[in-house]
Amino acid sequence: MKRYEQLADEIAALIRGGALRAGERLPSVRQTSVSRQVSPSTVFEAYYLLEARGLVRARPRSGYYVVPARPAAAPPEPQASKPPARSVDVAISELVFQVLGSVRDREVVPLGSAFPSPALFPLPRLARDLAAAMRELDPWRTVESLGPGHETLRRQLGLRYAADGMALDAQEIVVTNGAMEALNLSLQAVTRPGDLVAVESPTFYAALQALERLQLKAVEIATHPRSGVDLDALAAALDRHPIKACWFMPNFQNPLGSLMPEANKQALVALLAARGIPLIEDDVYGELYFDSRRPPPAKAWDRHGLVMHCSSFSKCLAPGYRIGWVAGGRFAQRIERMKLMTTLAAPIPSQEALSRYLQRGGYERHLRQLRQSLASQRDIALRLVAKHFPAGTRVTQPEGGYFLWLELPRGVDALQLHRLALSHRISLAPGHLFSAEHARFGHCVRINYGHPEDGRFEEAMKVVGRLAGNLGAA
Amino acid sequence: MKRYEQLADEIAALIRGGALRAGERLPSVRQTSVSRQVSPSTVFEAYYLLEARGLVRARPRSGYYVVPARPAAAPPEPQASKPPARSVDVAISELVFQVLGSVRDREVVPLGSAFPSPALFPLPRLARDLAAAMRELDPWRTVESLGPGHETLRRQLGLRYAADGMALDAQEIVVTNGAMEALNLSLQAVTRPGDLVAVESPTFYAALQALERLQLKAVEIATHPRSGVDLDALAAALDRHPIKACWFMPNFQNPLGSLMPEANKQALVALLAARGIPLIEDDVYGELYFDSRRPPPAKAWDRHGLVMHCSSFSKCLAPGYRIGWVAGGRFAQRIERMKLMTTLAAPIPSQEALSRYLQRGGYERHLRQLRQSLASQRDIALRLVAKHFPAGTRVTQPEGGYFLWLELPRGVDALQLHRLALSHRISLAPGHLFSAEHARFGHCVRINYGHPEDGRFEEAMKVVGRLAGNLGAA
Repeated sequence: MKRYEQLADEIAALIRGGALRAGERLPSVRQTSVSRQVSPSTVFEAYYLLEARGLVRARPRSGYYVVPARPAAAPPEPQASKPPARSVDVAISELVFQVLGSVRDREVVPLGSAFPSPALFPLPRLARDLAAAMRELDPWRTVESLGPGHETLRRQLGLRYAADGMALDAQEIVVTNGAMEALNLSLQAVTRPGDLVAVESPTFYAALQALERLQLKAVEIATHPRSGVDLDALAAALDRHPIKACWFMPNFQNPLGSLMPEANKQALVALLAARGIPLIEDDVYGELYFDSRRPPPAKAWDRHGLVMHCSSFSKCLAPGYRIGWVAGGRFAQRIERMKLMTTLAAPIPSQEALSRYLQRGGYERHLRQLRQSLASQRDIALRLVAKHFPAGTRVTQPEGGYFLWLELPRGVDALQLHRLALSHRISLAPGHLFSAEHARFGHCVRINYGHPEDGRFEEAMKVVGRLAGNLGAA
Repeated sequence: MKRYEQLADEIAALIRGGALRAGERLPSVRQTSVSRQVSPSTVFEAYYLLEARGLVRARPRSGYYVVPARPAAAPPEPQASKPPARSVDVAISELVFQVLGSVRDREVVPLGSAFPSPALFPLPRLARDLAAAMRELDPWRTVESLGPGHETLRRQLGLRYAADGMALDAQEIVVTNGAMEALNLSLQAVTRPGDLVAVESPTFYAALQALERLQLKAVEIATHPRSGVDLDALAAALDRHPIKACWFMPNFQNPLGSLMPEANKQALVALLAARGIPLIEDDVYGELYFDSRRPPPAKAWDRHGLVMHCSSFSKCLAPGYRIGWVAGGRFAQRIERMKLMTTLAAPIPSQEALSRYLQRGGYERHLRQLRQSLASQRDIALRLVAKHFPAGTRVTQPEGGYFLWLELPRGVDALQLHRLALSHRISLAPGHLFSAEHARFGHCVRINYGHPEDGRFEEAMKVVGRLAGNLGAA
């Protein structure tokens, strides 16, 4: 065993033993180098290794921090995907619509839902802000807010970027009808029919639907359930294919929950900048972290305006208000104009309400509660997987968001499991939805644990686990 | 002079003399046939001729009614357009964005605006309905209202269709982010890049932008400033070109204000049905009629689900709420799915507010006031054109909406006029915006008279008239 591996093991033991706790900073490289009598590079190597093991996380210009512990009982994590190096036409919408039609029925336990529980959000307080804002509305605002969107709201968004350490011109922010529109307009701004687009593997089905709608081809890139897109695989794909854009979720990827290390984000932006390839960054889960600090988006390293950072309030504050945005970099004007041509503008009442809510404060407090609620729910969900799912099941251990991704034993067909679960009034998102080559994740399911108040969750997990066991044994 | 022409002249004299007043019904064909001692077919011919002259209007199963009189002082109307019989690529967006950027500045008199004055709408009452609805909102509605849209709102829309004599399955109604999204999704549902689409000439620039965005080609059809699309010209174009869809505004076309006679609408639907060609019907001004009854849309004659009837509340009730819809016929599901893929859903607060407003009643009263206000403003605008614009100017006499379309003397370049007017802080919509072949209407302008409370209107019309006179004389 090399010296740095030994050091890493010692620190790992401190973390496991509780001497170093979640959120605490490791001693600096210099301190450790002195106290342990090893070279700084040995300390660096040890810290890198700890980060690769998921025990600590680097924060630029600050140091290494202990990542929150995971339930000891959780089954092992899935391994990185290894999609073949080819581009494929996309035809997934029909399947997505079939499967997801069931999710809106409130009689069905929504393990297959893409949304967290609406009970998690301060809807009454938003309603009051909405009422107050509309009572005082200057009628002319209904005309003036066309174009890039509500001035105050855009300024508030700019302030939030600034608070996260990103100096960003508010002029590049375009308010949209949810992140979905932001992502679709961004994709359309940088592609033409027939183009190739790199996506994660597995990837969010809405990305695949967008490709299908715009007649684009997907190139699926190997993706690690903990650290996200494999940059070597991406570089190789860029060498091999004339890829025109990437659509990635560096923070809490849907469905994997993976979180790219900051160094990887930086390297990703550099890799794409060197080739002039735009990145469509879907960051709708970025605020739902369980660690002590918001993970920066890849956009934080964008120096060439090539990153279109898309997000919304739908998953963290105001479901149904349909307010998203994109910080569109050099494509901002093109995106704004496409919006003017397709939906004209985002709704005034929603923009007024959110603008007022953000100005009045309280968002951070709400977000803290939301994160805590989702984090403990993740632990509950992982324990239930350990308890009720068949041996051989692998499951992700996300550090944010509200999805688990389960790899079931090879014999289990997720579509069959989905149909069986539906007969028990439980929905699931089968792995088939998350790749243009449906069968690749045919033994996987995405499970939504974002409904902490739903008393049916435990029983539903038990039922699905039993059904999966039966299918695997059959 | 034939007997029926003689009869028509006699009736026209009665109308001019005030013996038959606006909104009154002509005697039935049978009555007139008896009283005048002519054959029923002579009476029919006379009534047709009066309708062609714009003096009366037929209402199916009811009879012929006298159309409201127009200001005696108004200049003559423009003649029907005669676009060449070819298809053209569309490249208009850049020009549209350049010209319309100025319209949102409230320091500029908005003669070039596409919107009526926000002061015309019951925004405070809507705000109260919005507040009440959101206070009582069941959080689960934020999830359940995805898909085709808010149940109650769709039912209310269905009731309005029924009240207008149209039995329409509420299931074919998809709520959208404004009419703009409804129209764009409809167009996308029935075309592929490279396809040909028939449009009016002149046509609304947003239709041209939609064609440009989807890489479609325009076939411009001759259009009469009073009766809309020329059906003979359309039939000829359908014979000559593989047209895949039509995008028309049978009611108060933008920019002409033309209103297709009901017989023409019926014939239009039959013509297209015989060839299986879908019609995208833009009916956003249908509620803004000055006659005594809402003109039915072409959709009223649709028996094959080929008409996609698109409208919204943005021009008649709730600007900025961004709620439109499409009754999509056989394309409804396709449209709904495309919406799910691009913007997911329309905003909940706006849908809740409008649903509650419609349920509580009062919409008809608001609409009556709005129509009266716009009708008297049209008369004022026509008088100002007569008074201040140079000889040789022609102007439409719309029976609804809030646009005048002016044909200026040939020497006047509308873009130049637009720039001069802007230097006087007045906006205009130059004719260049309304055709894929910009120069065709290069001596025309669209003028918005929908700001009755704007004290600057008369002075602005005077200035623009003077500028036009100077340009024409130069």
